[in-house]
Amino acid sequence: MTSFIVYKGSKNGVTKSSVTKPEHLTGDKVLMRITASGLCGTDLHSLHDDVILGHEGVGVVEAVGPDSKHLRKGDRVGFGYQHDSCGNCRNCLTGNETYCVDRAVYGTKKVDQGSFAAYAVVREAFLHKIPEGMSDVDAAPLQCAGATVFAVLQAHNTRPTETVGVIGLGGLGHLAIQFAAKMGNRVVVLSGSDRKKQQAFDLGAHEFVSIKGKDKLEVSTPIDRLLVTTSAQPNWELILPIMAPGSSIYPLSVDSGNLEIPYLPIVLNGLAVQGSLVASRILHREMLAFAALHGIKPITETFPLTEEGVKTAIEKLEHGDIHLRAVLTAA
Amino acid sequence: MTSFIVYKGSKNGVTKSSVTKPEHLTGDKVLMRITASGLCGTDLHSLHDDVILGHEGVGVVEAVGPDSKHLRKGDRVGFGYQHDSCGNCRNCLTGNETYCVDRAVYGTKKVDQGSFAAYAVVREAFLHKIPEGMSDVDAAPLQCAGATVFAVLQAHNTRPTETVGVIGLGGLGHLAIQFAAKMGNRVVVLSGSDRKKQQAFDLGAHEFVSIKGKDKLEVSTPIDRLLVTTSAQPNWELILPIMAPGSSIYPLSVDSGNLEIPYLPIVLNGLAVQGSLVASRILHREMLAFAALHGIKPITETFPLTEEGVKTAIEKLEHGDIHLRAVLTAA
Repeated sequence: MTSFIVYKGSKNGVTKSSVTKPEHLTGDKVLMRITASGLCGTDLHSLHDDVILGHEGVGVVEAVGPDSKHLRKGDRVGFGYQHDSCGNCRNCLTGNETYCVDRAVYGTKKVDQGSFAAYAVVREAFLHKIPEGMSDVDAAPLQCAGATVFAVLQAHNTRPTETVGVIGLGGLGHLAIQFAAKMGNRVVVLSGSDRKKQQAFDLGAHEFVSIKGKDKLEVSTPIDRLLVTTSAQPNWELILPIMAPGSSIYPLSVDSGNLEIPYLPIVLNGLAVQGSLVASRILHREMLAFAALHGIKPITETFPLTEEGVKTAIEKLEHGDIHLRAVLTAA
Repeated sequence: MTSFIVYKGSKNGVTKSSVTKPEHLTGDKVLMRITASGLCGTDLHSLHDDVILGHEGVGVVEAVGPDSKHLRKGDRVGFGYQHDSCGNCRNCLTGNETYCVDRAVYGTKKVDQGSFAAYAVVREAFLHKIPEGMSDVDAAPLQCAGATVFAVLQAHNTRPTETVGVIGLGGLGHLAIQFAAKMGNRVVVLSGSDRKKQQAFDLGAHEFVSIKGKDKLEVSTPIDRLLVTTSAQPNWELILPIMAPGSSIYPLSVDSGNLEIPYLPIVLNGLAVQGSLVASRILHREMLAFAALHGIKPITETFPLTEEGVKTAIEKLEHGDIHLRAVLTAA
């Protein structure tokens, strides 16, 4: 076989295509066979771009390049949003390569591989071993959704005694609840209606607040860290009064437009609005280990990693019909 | 004397009035004679409120209450925006009493003393000794303006190797430049025109950028910490491209309305918008010691602490005619 199937964005949406399989791997490049790929809301932003789709890839190493040192054929590995960084800037040198100004990330021309594909060629340096006992399907959504919410909690020194709020019980939110609960935090879930209340508690939440129709929210403890996992911005006038002084708000979805938030409470209560993008590699690996140790798993709905499967999953995601997280699986 | 003169806000603006001088001080209350008081932009927000004006007070201890332990008659002391806190909440117990939910701060009914007055009665716990060699006039603007900018740099772990940006060379800005420069930071000043360029360099800045008429800003090093000391919000579209990944923006002026800032760069570059209010007491005291050690001084214009002096100073401040910082001084 000299080429493999990939699913790309195009002006007509998802298109089946193929790319040449390298005869010889260079540097620390690794050829992996994809076994499972998560489908993330961010993928919807790339459906019409000329890029291979998918950034929650899990699979098995088939071959390694001459400079690879840590992986070997047969290892189970995963990759996420980031495929490379310069290795030389302040962010790279401090383990914050997520913010490397020359980073190669999903959805840009710098990345010519993806996880909606039979294979992918990815630098060993940006592959992460999947812990034993964690299934490929469970591992896939952790590569972006899991990494994103874990990084928020870990990169900004959340302490176990703090109260973590999660707005939105979806792909990111249902993992955030589990991670925060296992880190010892008191977890408050804010959701539109009461519909997801039982599920929130099942995932480890300690308190549930439905927002719809309220002109004032009540929580038993003010929130120290708020993860905003909904695609639309919440009504900040409702949210700010339940934030603790000195607390932080993390908007996690990707959206254009402005952030518009009341100014004075930010200053007077020392609040922070803190951006956060996926996870550095060290946090990504700690996330996988933590999830394995505590049995943290996404709730998934699987589809075959075929043209029809990809299209069906995307259509369901676009219509809001995926229950928590879609995963494409190879036969 | 059984009463003393104070200048209050009222529906007609500043009004001369008097309050009863306590015959016996209770608790750790301290009676101080005011020798100098800064005039701050925040004072303009209280001109029509029924409060004693002034929150940058410096003077001499006249008498101490039965529970006072650290101050004695004749000590030179200062007070700022905060007069009391509950002492029992998480913020108080961690040295963050600025964010105590039951704090007593200037401009509210909880504070019945001010620095536009002949005397003030303030809890010893919220008074700060003025270092030897620092004049009362120089000490006054440090009680709020100095504390505010120092706290931003110290409370959020700015490292000396970082680049600090200061937007606005006014009462806060001219102190921020000096503090950051003495902390070892590379200091970039952003100002409307080139008019204040020489002054910025004289105060310790390393780079000066004039904003007016630009549709793109150039800095030699991206900014890690940006102190926004202007009363109006800057054009964020201009500012965000010169912020380093993972950097922080501190809006310091008090204003109503919304913060409106492009959303996506915050997420993709891991930027933070971090509110910050004056300084906790430990930072306030460290600020005074640091200013004394390094000869950091406000540039002041003095007015007599009389009805006419107060009114003249306020009028000049309202018209933007104060060069950097007004200080009222007792005869």
